[in-house]
Amino acid sequence: MKITQLGSEISIRRTIAEGTEQQVQAVKEIIATVRAEGDAALIRFTEKWDGAKLARLRVAPKEISEAVERLDPQLLADLTEAADNIRRYHESQKQEGYKLENSDGSYVAQRVTAIESAGLYVPGGTAAYPSSVLMNVIPAQVAGVGRIVLISPPGKDGTLSDGVLAAAHILGIDEVYKSGGAQAIAALAYGTESIAAVDKITGPGNMYVALAKREVNGDVAIDMIAGPSEIAVIADDTAYPDEVAADLLSQAEHDPMASAVLLTTSRSLAEAVSKEVQKQAATLPRYSIVQPAIQDHGMIYIGETLEQVIEAANELAPEHLEIMTEDAEAVADKIRHAGAIFIGRYSSEPVGDYFAGTNHVLPTNSTARFSSALSVYDFLKRTSIIHYSEQQWQNSKEKIARLARLEGLEGHARAVESRSWKKETQL
Amino acid sequence: MKITQLGSEISIRRTIAEGTEQQVQAVKEIIATVRAEGDAALIRFTEKWDGAKLARLRVAPKEISEAVERLDPQLLADLTEAADNIRRYHESQKQEGYKLENSDGSYVAQRVTAIESAGLYVPGGTAAYPSSVLMNVIPAQVAGVGRIVLISPPGKDGTLSDGVLAAAHILGIDEVYKSGGAQAIAALAYGTESIAAVDKITGPGNMYVALAKREVNGDVAIDMIAGPSEIAVIADDTAYPDEVAADLLSQAEHDPMASAVLLTTSRSLAEAVSKEVQKQAATLPRYSIVQPAIQDHGMIYIGETLEQVIEAANELAPEHLEIMTEDAEAVADKIRHAGAIFIGRYSSEPVGDYFAGTNHVLPTNSTARFSSALSVYDFLKRTSIIHYSEQQWQNSKEKIARLARLEGLEGHARAVESRSWKKETQL
Repeated sequence: MKITQLGSEISIRRTIAEGTEQQVQAVKEIIATVRAEGDAALIRFTEKWDGAKLARLRVAPKEISEAVERLDPQLLADLTEAADNIRRYHESQKQEGYKLENSDGSYVAQRVTAIESAGLYVPGGTAAYPSSVLMNVIPAQVAGVGRIVLISPPGKDGTLSDGVLAAAHILGIDEVYKSGGAQAIAALAYGTESIAAVDKITGPGNMYVALAKREVNGDVAIDMIAGPSEIAVIADDTAYPDEVAADLLSQAEHDPMASAVLLTTSRSLAEAVSKEVQKQAATLPRYSIVQPAIQDHGMIYIGETLEQVIEAANELAPEHLEIMTEDAEAVADKIRHAGAIFIGRYSSEPVGDYFAGTNHVLPTNSTARFSSALSVYDFLKRTSIIHYSEQQWQNSKEKIARLARLEGLEGHARAVESRSWKKETQL
Repeated sequence: MKITQLGSEISIRRTIAEGTEQQVQAVKEIIATVRAEGDAALIRFTEKWDGAKLARLRVAPKEISEAVERLDPQLLADLTEAADNIRRYHESQKQEGYKLENSDGSYVAQRVTAIESAGLYVPGGTAAYPSSVLMNVIPAQVAGVGRIVLISPPGKDGTLSDGVLAAAHILGIDEVYKSGGAQAIAALAYGTESIAAVDKITGPGNMYVALAKREVNGDVAIDMIAGPSEIAVIADDTAYPDEVAADLLSQAEHDPMASAVLLTTSRSLAEAVSKEVQKQAATLPRYSIVQPAIQDHGMIYIGETLEQVIEAANELAPEHLEIMTEDAEAVADKIRHAGAIFIGRYSSEPVGDYFAGTNHVLPTNSTARFSSALSVYDFLKRTSIIHYSEQQWQNSKEKIARLARLEGLEGHARAVESRSWKKETQL
C-alpha cells in the first residue's frame, strides 16, 4: 500500500462514480420494455443475462423449504441469532406520533405510519448475501411494512442460493421472485402480471441496479445509491499490524473499486501494515478483486498529530471507521462523520456486517456527512394533521390573511376569510 | 370544473413532470460553469436572467436592517408568531440517540447529530415567500445545524424582498446571498469564492432549480423534488360550497400546473362548488394562473359511498387533504396517504401554509405514499457505534466467520479470526 504524509492540501474525499451515457440509455430501455411487456420481458432478460430459463418468476414454497433443509443447521442457528441481534438494535428506532392539543380540543399532530409495501433487491451472481436479506427486511418489519418482497437474480440453473432463501424463511418472508438487474427494479417499481408494484425499493446492486434505482426514484422511493464499500482505520502504535491489515482487506475483497485507508500517527505501524497487507492479500481466494482495490484505492496516510488524523477521517466521512488507538472512545467522540464507528481491537468491521445488530447498509462516497444507515425510519412516513377550532380560526384569520397577501396570494387570504362570508351558496 | 363519477377503472394518481432533454442539458452546463468560474459565473448569470448587476453576492447587514424597518410592524409580529408556532411543532421532532449496553461495558449505539451546514433556496420573481424561509430554516435550527444559508434571486434592482429578509432577521440568519436558478444550487453544492459549499440543500423552485437539485444530489443532500401544489377536498352535504371553492382556488393560484380535486358523495355539492369556483376565480388577481390550473388539473369526482371517496383520496395521496364532512375525524382516521390532513371547516389549507406550526413543505405527485413533510429529521444524521469486548468477540467470532464464509467472503472471516492469530508482526 502507498504511504503518504497527510498534508493540508490533500483532499481525500471520495466522489460518486456515475454510469456512462450508454449504461444510462440501456437502463432506460430495459425499464421501458418491462413496463410495456411485463413478465415476458423479465423472463427474456433473465435468459439473456442470467442464462436461466424460468417457468415462473415466483419462488415456490417447496424451493424455500428444501433450501432450509439443505442448509447446515449451525448456519441456520447463526442466521437466527444474527436476526435477533439486528431486531433488538432496530426496535429502539420505532417512532411515535405526537399531538399538541389546546384546551378547546383543537390540535396539530404528527401521525407516524409504515410504508405499505417494500421490495428488497438481493444481488446474486458470484456471491449471495443472506446478511443483506436480514439487514433490509428487519427494519421494514420493525416499522410494520405490510408487504415485503424479495427479488434476486437466479443462477444458471434457475435457483436462488440456499442462504438467501433460508434467511427469507427465518424472517417469515415468502414472496420471493427470480429476476435481477435493472429489469428487477423496473418490475418492483411498476409491477408486472405476477409482481405487484411496491412503494419503496431498497438493497444493494451493481451499476445497472443503481442506475435503475436512480431512474425510478420519485415514482417509488429508494434507499441510498450505495457506492463501492469503504473502510478507514485510525490506528496508533498500540494496534496490531496484522489485525489492521486483515480488516483493510476484508473490505477490499468486496469490489475492485472498494477503498481501504489507514490513518495513523505511526510510521512504523504504517510500514508494518503495508507489508502485512501484501502478505495476507496473496493468500485470499478473492485476490483478483483485492489486488486492484488495494492498488488503486488503498492508501496509508501518516499524520503529525492524532488531531490531524481525526480531521482527515472527518473529511473522508467513511462508510466504516475503525478506531484502534489508546483511549479509542475519546477518539470516537471526536468523529463527526462516519456511517458506522467500530471502537477498539475486538470490534472488527465484519462484526457489524453480520452480527452486532447495527445495519450494514451504510452511506458511502463521503455521504455520511448528511446520510445515515438504513433504519426503521426509512420505512415510516409521517402525516401532519391540523384541526383548528372556530375559536382558533377567529384568533388567527387576520394574521394568516395578512401573511398570504404579503406573498401576493390573495386566494389564500380569501380561503381563510371565506368562513365568515355570508352564505348565499349554502345548499 | 369537470364533474365525473368515480369508477373503479379511473386512476387518479399524479406522476412527476420531468424536464426536457434540453433543460437537463442547460442545467448541466450552468452547473459546470459555476464550478469552473465561481462568483464570476453567478454575477454573469444573474445579470442575464434576473436583469440585476450585482457588486457583491452577499446581502449586507444594512440591507437586512433596512428591510426590517420598512416592513409593516404588524407583519413582523405575524411572522414572529408564525415562527413561534412552527418552532413549537418542530421541537417535538428532536431525536435522541440510544445505547444498548452489556454488563461487560460492550455496546451498540446510535448517535444522532445535526448536519453541519444547510442551504435554503428561496424563490423570487413574481412572488417572494417569507413563509418558505420559516418552514425551511426552523427545522434546521431545531435540529442544531450550525451554518444556515439563504440564497434567492434578486429583483432587477438587485434587492431581495423585505419580507424574505425580515423572516431571515427574525430567525437570526445573516448569511444571505443573491442568486437564483440552477446557478444558485450549483453554488450551494460546490461553493464559490464567496459562498462556502453546504451539506444539504432544501427549498422549492422552478423546473431549473428542481433539475439542478436532482443533478447535485449525492454530492450534497437535497430535500424532496417538489412538484406543483395539490389540494384534495373530501366533502359531503354538510360542507359550504363557497368555502370548498375558495380552498380549491387557494392552491390553484400557485401554479398553472397546480391541481385541485373535490371528492364528494353529493352531486348537489359538486354542482354548487363547480359554479362557485367559476364565480370566485374570475375575481382573483392571479386569474391567469388559476384558470389553466382549474381547467387542466381541476376535477370533481362523485363517489357512491364515503368509503369509495376515501379510497380515491388514498389512491391520490395528495399533498394537502381537507376533510369537510360529518365526523371529519373518523374520515381522517381512514386516510392512509396524504402529506397533511386538514380536519373540519375551520382548518382551511392556508392555516397550515402560514400559521398552525406544521411544515408546508410536503410531498407532491402521490409521493405521500412513502414521503413526509420536511422536518427536523431531515437535518439530522445517525452514526452507528459498535464497541465489542474481548468476551463478546470470543462468544461470536465463530458464528461471524461461518456467516462470512457462507457468503464467500474469506477475508471477512479472517479479519474476525485475526485477533487470535499468533502476533509475529507486533511492533
